Amino acid sequence: MKLIRYGQPGQERTGVQLDGVNYDTSAFGSDYNEQFFERGGLASLEAYVAAHRQELQTIGDDERLASPIARPSKIVCIGLNYADHAKETGAALPPEPVIFMKSTTSLTGPNDNIMIPKNSVKTDWEVELAIVIGKKASYIEEAEANDYIAGYVLHNDVSEREFQLERNGTWDKGKGCDTFAPLGPVLATADELGDLDNLRLWLTVNGKKMQDGTTANLIFKIPYLVSYVSQFMTLLPGDVISTGTPAGVGLGFNPPVYLKPGDVVELGIDGLGTQKQQVVAYTKS
Amino acid sequence: MKLIRYGQPGQERTGVQLDGVNYDTSAFGSDYNEQFFERGGLASLEAYVAAHRQELQTIGDDERLASPIARPSKIVCIGLNYADHAKETGAALPPEPVIFMKSTTSLTGPNDNIMIPKNSVKTDWEVELAIVIGKKASYIEEAEANDYIAGYVLHNDVSEREFQLERNGTWDKGKGCDTFAPLGPVLATADELGDLDNLRLWLTVNGKKMQDGTTANLIFKIPYLVSYVSQFMTLLPGDVISTGTPAGVGLGFNPPVYLKPGDVVELGIDGLGTQKQQVVAYTKS
Repeated sequence: MKLIRYGQPGQERTGVQLDGVNYDTSAFGSDYNEQFFERGGLASLEAYVAAHRQELQTIGDDERLASPIARPSKIVCIGLNYADHAKETGAALPPEPVIFMKSTTSLTGPNDNIMIPKNSVKTDWEVELAIVIGKKASYIEEAEANDYIAGYVLHNDVSEREFQLERNGTWDKGKGCDTFAPLGPVLATADELGDLDNLRLWLTVNGKKMQDGTTANLIFKIPYLVSYVSQFMTLLPGDVISTGTPAGVGLGFNPPVYLKPGDVVELGIDGLGTQKQQVVAYTKS
Repeated sequence: MKLIRYGQPGQERTGVQLDGVNYDTSAFGSDYNEQFFERGGLASLEAYVAAHRQELQTIGDDERLASPIARPSKIVCIGLNYADHAKETGAALPPEPVIFMKSTTSLTGPNDNIMIPKNSVKTDWEVELAIVIGKKASYIEEAEANDYIAGYVLHNDVSEREFQLERNGTWDKGKGCDTFAPLGPVLATADELGDLDNLRLWLTVNGKKMQDGTTANLIFKIPYLVSYVSQFMTLLPGDVISTGTPAGVGLGFNPPVYLKPGDVVELGIDGLGTQKQQVVAYTKS
């Protein structure tokens, strides 16, 4: 199953994508949030869609696509999880996963604008495969990790490198700005995807290919990551773990290349669709 | 006003503390969560309490006290914000605030047990003054910061030092374990407290004074911190910013001293009450 959400910010409605077409499922009656996953919503939604397949209304192409999940309790990210990316940033290969967190206020739709923060000069991109947690997970084993995963989603882990690396804090300072977590368009369950260890992921800026990687190169694989993070904090249904980015971020160029107003960022992962973001200057909302 | 919450985990009810006595305010009809603060709940609650003062029922002393606020969207912490604490950890004085985040699943009541995480050998304590945000704050000025603060609360920023400092990640890895954020007993509005820049804060382990500081020694003051954090992420109503800890944590001793099952931690801040936690070994819940 592929889940979507659409509509203006704060007024999102739910839907599903069937054979590439988006259908409204508002009548199902639950947003795709913590309670939805906790109460077995994925199975209920599947039954609902099967029972009402003929009545489902399509969603207009002019509708804004939102994050396919409502605001989660947390967005946990894994740093330096592709060897080629670790190398380009000048970091050593991590002996165990690097964990940091994004403020959930950074969450936005897959095609919403990326707003360069006030006083930012180093806003960068990172295409990532993100995991959505399906049930509460604490100290789980790697072998059982798949039972705790609801599905997968495309994520641009937008990052401000000066805030992240030069402003005397942990990485969190450069990861949680507004619009820094475009998520979607779909949350896909595992059965919708091919081999999770062999998905291609790519990103372009103004049409130029910047990132072109494969999850085959993940240093720490998906089940290990879910188990690992659950040793340090309890994961709740709907929580996100973003698994890291391959080489080709702006920081890795010599000299570095960062986003500026007017740039267009596009990215995608096999089976998870694509995102397209306009980069805009900071404006007070 | 002083707000409290009480009852078993997941079934908390709301209340207020008047002249040191706790009263139920369940009939007010809203938990102390994001929507409560967003919709001017503090003023509404004050009016409710004034109108129903004679009917309010006292809360039994045997009731568990919960965090005085429901789970927030985020818990942001400031590191190394007392010069004496920075020195004891061997860190340089920060030129600007250090920011890190705690998983909100670490939130617990003021007198709940502290559970030492599985495989932990360095669980430590940190008495802190925490700020609760009253309205959405993005890029706010220091001079207007007080308008965005709902009140203040006592926080034990429990920390696993090996996870935090030796496990190849940002500090977040050692800060968000279950039971690592005892909060409360009260959320006090500013008018209930004396000079915020001159509050005493202290912590004992098994009756021995470990921390004894004053907010006079905060390197970065409260209004500055709210303004500062709001430059990097949008703060939502009910969000928590914990302002850092004075000297006297276990990591600062030579050799370091860490918590073990059976230890009793007590802490307090002028006007914000006290907490008392039993330290217990990890058990699967």
